Amino acid sequence: MRATVMYEAGDVRVEDVPDARLIEPTDALVRVTRAAVCGSDLWPYKTMEHSDTGRRMGHEAIGAVEDVGADVHTLSAGDLVVMPFAFSDGTCVFCHEGLHTSCIHGGFFGTEDVAGAQAEAVRVPQADGTLVVLPVGADDELMPSLLTLSDVMGTGQHGAVAAEVGPGKTAAVVGDGAVGLCGVIAAKRLGAEQIILLGRHSDRIALAKEFGATDVVSERGEEAVERVRELTGGFGAHSVLECVGLEQSMQTAIGIARPGGAVGRVGVPQDETMAGSRTAFFDNITVSGGPAPARAYIEELLPDVLEGRIEPGRVFDRVVGLDEVPDGYRAMNDRKAIKVMVKP
Amino acid sequence: MRATVMYEAGDVRVEDVPDARLIEPTDALVRVTRAAVCGSDLWPYKTMEHSDTGRRMGHEAIGAVEDVGADVHTLSAGDLVVMPFAFSDGTCVFCHEGLHTSCIHGGFFGTEDVAGAQAEAVRVPQADGTLVVLPVGADDELMPSLLTLSDVMGTGQHGAVAAEVGPGKTAAVVGDGAVGLCGVIAAKRLGAEQIILLGRHSDRIALAKEFGATDVVSERGEEAVERVRELTGGFGAHSVLECVGLEQSMQTAIGIARPGGAVGRVGVPQDETMAGSRTAFFDNITVSGGPAPARAYIEELLPDVLEGRIEPGRVFDRVVGLDEVPDGYRAMNDRKAIKVMVKP
Repeated sequence: MRATVMYEAGDVRVEDVPDARLIEPTDALVRVTRAAVCGSDLWPYKTMEHSDTGRRMGHEAIGAVEDVGADVHTLSAGDLVVMPFAFSDGTCVFCHEGLHTSCIHGGFFGTEDVAGAQAEAVRVPQADGTLVVLPVGADDELMPSLLTLSDVMGTGQHGAVAAEVGPGKTAAVVGDGAVGLCGVIAAKRLGAEQIILLGRHSDRIALAKEFGATDVVSERGEEAVERVRELTGGFGAHSVLECVGLEQSMQTAIGIARPGGAVGRVGVPQDETMAGSRTAFFDNITVSGGPAPARAYIEELLPDVLEGRIEPGRVFDRVVGLDEVPDGYRAMNDRKAIKVMVKP
Repeated sequence: MRATVMYEAGDVRVEDVPDARLIEPTDALVRVTRAAVCGSDLWPYKTMEHSDTGRRMGHEAIGAVEDVGADVHTLSAGDLVVMPFAFSDGTCVFCHEGLHTSCIHGGFFGTEDVAGAQAEAVRVPQADGTLVVLPVGADDELMPSLLTLSDVMGTGQHGAVAAEVGPGKTAAVVGDGAVGLCGVIAAKRLGAEQIILLGRHSDRIALAKEFGATDVVSERGEEAVERVRELTGGFGAHSVLECVGLEQSMQTAIGIARPGGAVGRVGVPQDETMAGSRTAFFDNITVSGGPAPARAYIEELLPDVLEGRIEPGRVFDRVVGLDEVPDGYRAMNDRKAIKVMVKP
């Protein structure tokens, strides 16, 4: 069959490869009727080192089930299905929590183990958990929108959910690629009142406005931050969708977020300097917090202290008078005291 | 009056300074009955550049109200009050959202503008919003625990809330200082089933166990990550409280978090390399997201697509056959197409 193979940056070819076939009993074989090129395919297109065997590209598809393994029970030949960019068993603890990309038996298309979908056919592991049957014909006019459920629309939705978009809030979307545009749709759908797109391509901006963007910021860096502040009463946006994945765009995203706001990041981090962030990204880990609004917690914690249910005061293991405060600093610095109380 | 002044790293003194007094009509003058030395005071104690005027230290206190300005209505002389480490008006939009540290009229004690509380008395701005009256006598045996509501207990609580600790979850606490220990109390109080303390001081570990820690990990770096994984069925902790503030401890915190988990960071970031993180920290911005569980969103989004309420398919502005896929890559890379659909 014909399939897309990338050999190195800029070298992507469509070639004859061995036919896709069932391997595991949980597989389905899907004849691809629609596939797509993803923004994330452009990263290897720009940077990939040479590979003799090449990489089989593509992770977005709609197609018709052609055959299923013995352990596939919810699908049968002829079903039209949409394929999310990650396969997942649908039964593990992470799938139950809605984090199918961390499925214990899951993985990704277009990798060494599982070939890509920019091809005539694709093998889909964990088919029961992965594929969703579509109640339309293979040439339905909704095909483009249905195909976005493979990745970009779900990714825009994830960015909006992670950014905690909700009714009446202000959302900002960093990036005007397909994911950013779907992020605008998602923000609108989840009730954002003001939606600011950060982008500079006129065709994409026009589409973003049709999707619900209320404001456009084409500046970058500090100027973009200033402009978003102006548009949001000086505070920044409650919800920011980071749809690029560069250090600079992440800095902008954080810079335009309102205190206490949330950045939902779906741009795959490209910078090695974002090392800690990369781990956090791939595991969908939320990093939150900052200076504690201690005042906000006093009403809640005071009764527990007064009634003896918690005894945080036990962290004080030394008491000094005011004139002995320098000794107190020394003791804590030398790890001889956990925490010093001062009685003036 | 006597007050604590730091002139440079290692040089902290108790000196005679002008008496604290009311300046703004919203101020209260508080006679300090208890103050404390904070782990965060140790950072300038280790690193502060020389200052001729010095810095007036201390941001945790309990005391008796001695006098109030004309615009203070909820406090009167004689009230025993606890003072959170940040002052706040209690009425602005951020205070209403519970983020008093971002109060529009707020600020911090122990700064150039507002002197510290390791002193005989302290001026408290925005007194109505800031101070909380305590229903006990000035020498009540609960003083140590009540004093922690100024900072460390509220900070441990904030770490646990930001880390989304909840009933039945596994929490891990990075750091065995006073904040980490209060984080253990908070995690227990919020229902965590397993509480893993990462620390290496035997006295602190003993206290952590009394506070509710179920496991202790004294390894560091990759070994700590391995050990926490072993203790959590291979997955990591749902909730991680980062109570140190160094790059290494943040990496560990992310490393021991379960996919889809949350890191609540309350250790003030010390590394300049954490630049973006520092901004996110001081504004209490949540950074969340990662690869989208597109599969999880299909059920929710599919009806909207089928019924035409959203049209994400409009991001496809070029359609190619399988053999033209390389042209598709080129078009997207040259920004001539937003997104390319493939019809094999």
